[in-house]
Amino acid sequence: MLAPLANRLSQIQPFHVVHMLLRARELEAVGRDIIHMEIGEPDFPLAPPLRDAATAALSGSALGYAPSAGLPALRDCIAAQYAASGIDVPVSRILVTPGGSGALMIAMALVANAGERVLLPDPGYPCNRNFVHHLDAVPVAVPVSAAAGHHLTVSDLEAAAAGPSRIAAAMVSSPSNPAGTLIDPAQLDAMRCWLGARGAALLVDEIYHDLIYREQPVQSALALGDDLFVINSFSKSFGMTGWRLGWLVVPPGFEDAALRLAQNLFIAAPSIAQHVALAGFGADAQAIFAERRRELAARRDWLLPALEQLGFAVPASPEGAFYIYADCRRFGLPADTLCRELLDDVGVALTPGLDFGEHAVTDRLRFAYTCALPRLREAVDRIGGWLSARGLVPSR
Amino acid sequence: MLAPLANRLSQIQPFHVVHMLLRARELEAVGRDIIHMEIGEPDFPLAPPLRDAATAALSGSALGYAPSAGLPALRDCIAAQYAASGIDVPVSRILVTPGGSGALMIAMALVANAGERVLLPDPGYPCNRNFVHHLDAVPVAVPVSAAAGHHLTVSDLEAAAAGPSRIAAAMVSSPSNPAGTLIDPAQLDAMRCWLGARGAALLVDEIYHDLIYREQPVQSALALGDDLFVINSFSKSFGMTGWRLGWLVVPPGFEDAALRLAQNLFIAAPSIAQHVALAGFGADAQAIFAERRRELAARRDWLLPALEQLGFAVPASPEGAFYIYADCRRFGLPADTLCRELLDDVGVALTPGLDFGEHAVTDRLRFAYTCALPRLREAVDRIGGWLSARGLVPSR
Repeated sequence: MLAPLANRLSQIQPFHVVHMLLRARELEAVGRDIIHMEIGEPDFPLAPPLRDAATAALSGSALGYAPSAGLPALRDCIAAQYAASGIDVPVSRILVTPGGSGALMIAMALVANAGERVLLPDPGYPCNRNFVHHLDAVPVAVPVSAAAGHHLTVSDLEAAAAGPSRIAAAMVSSPSNPAGTLIDPAQLDAMRCWLGARGAALLVDEIYHDLIYREQPVQSALALGDDLFVINSFSKSFGMTGWRLGWLVVPPGFEDAALRLAQNLFIAAPSIAQHVALAGFGADAQAIFAERRRELAARRDWLLPALEQLGFAVPASPEGAFYIYADCRRFGLPADTLCRELLDDVGVALTPGLDFGEHAVTDRLRFAYTCALPRLREAVDRIGGWLSARGLVPSR
Repeated sequence: MLAPLANRLSQIQPFHVVHMLLRARELEAVGRDIIHMEIGEPDFPLAPPLRDAATAALSGSALGYAPSAGLPALRDCIAAQYAASGIDVPVSRILVTPGGSGALMIAMALVANAGERVLLPDPGYPCNRNFVHHLDAVPVAVPVSAAAGHHLTVSDLEAAAAGPSRIAAAMVSSPSNPAGTLIDPAQLDAMRCWLGARGAALLVDEIYHDLIYREQPVQSALALGDDLFVINSFSKSFGMTGWRLGWLVVPPGFEDAALRLAQNLFIAAPSIAQHVALAGFGADAQAIFAERRRELAARRDWLLPALEQLGFAVPASPEGAFYIYADCRRFGLPADTLCRELLDDVGVALTPGLDFGEHAVTDRLRFAYTCALPRLREAVDRIGGWLSARGLVPSR
């Protein structure tokens, strides 16, 4: 007799994008050219200053366990970055983690008891609900509208207030995944106050915060106060996806508990990744990241109208990250069918809305502009040709 | 009003060794020479073939997200290593994880529901109980005797059977931490059968399995059957502590669920660490590891009688890992007092038994032979001098 699987596993579903990726690899294995717009990982190589830092770390002797809270120099850099935008975050509130994933895990474990509710926007990053299931807490998928920028509002919180168990937390991602939308600071602050008044935590995922394409700088949610948790990562901003490094900012009073969790659950974040990230704060690396940000903005500026011209609707303006969350209702095909057929027929890989929740997802899909403009143009051409052949768009 | 801390945090205590380490660093900062025998991290640098593999990976382009289950080539190497010792483990049952910590987390989440019990040896690796608390499950610290090699027995399981909730799992570490003792295969098999008959899982931590100092090879617990979970790591065997890479072997039927957890909780283990570990399976790296194993055996062979001569008792023979778990009762001082005073007075850093549980820990401490023989000799001289000055040992 085998041990039974823990109950939480019945709640944790695989991602549809994984099937898309596997199918894409099958097609590539037989020689097909696939344009990858499904995974949240841009096509930039490791920036040279970061590669040099890795090489230097390899010839040093500092690759044993790092401190559980992170290298002091790296925590200093993170604090200095907040200070440069006028936000005072003591180093003691900053914990370096194994990826943004590690930050999400610690934040959830700090605030949510089994059985308590965590409010999440639907659509949203699919792992979030599973961090909640992991703790036998209850993720509440709150349908969010394009009109609200695909973000939660105080009205949403009010509507959920009377549920069956305590609200432990609510989560916001800005820029959001899958929509790339920014939350209005006043809207976020109202939620912060509403949650605070009820002893519930506000978790803000800012892993795309360094990829915002507005002229004016946008401040971290930490500018609103210190009574919230901020999840961040070097994956997207520093092009370090595979290195698994992120950080968590906790409110005053949570520092010690966060550190105890990190000591026990992770021991520490990867050492070499921390040396690499340190180099990312240098002027030469920052110049490269700024150039990449301009490149991503140019991709968005080209792709968004091109998709709209094909007949996709994008009701909420994507202002950051590298995603466009598009409505394909006009074509009269379920989004997952469209994704499957576009991949099989013309080799364009996208993510069906199904991965992001349950609200209005059957006519949504996510385009990741993670490849260069010529490839994006090629993708739009292929999709346009496919739609034309079926009489679904005006001839082009 | 601030969100309250989740209840599990009241159960998760910090490690005493952290205080020892911080105090040691304070002393070093004022110029004191400290001999570090407190942390489970040997003094070997990254092996050259592994450093070369890291350098090669840096000039390649394969540092984005790895597959959630691990690089196929790395999973193949792990399977081949089991096959070489006559154990057939299909690659599908092997999941590469962020450290042994990641493997422990996935294993616990697969088998333990909130409120269910997980039986752990006391003394044992201190994080284990906190992986259980993390899930709001109940770690049961079972006192284990030196006579039983500091391992659980079927009698222990029988005695715990009638507790207040289901037994979800029991955990064994072999070689053990803190004692370096091996479990008898017959004893382990009896537990496997007992647990299996009750639908409970057997988790076997083998992270020190490549550091065993017997003449005859010792087989993995997987030789007993496929109905158990094995946690392993590259940290100690490949000298990769700071790289955070391990693996988990699951029983047939658990592959898909384990992968779903890994996708959601980690995305993937660090990519560069996986390329480094791949090189560790090469003949040149294996020769280095074999030489290090001989060096560790020589350290144990010298240190064990030296400690006994000082008056420490070591009732269970340490046959692996790099730890000696010693009884200091003869000196009439609580072990944590002894540790504190040895650090302050003669600069030898050890871990008090308190970190490993509650059973007979006040007169126990752990010596990690993680530094070279001359330093171990120096440590023993310093301890001997300190004890002599207090009339606690015969003059030497």
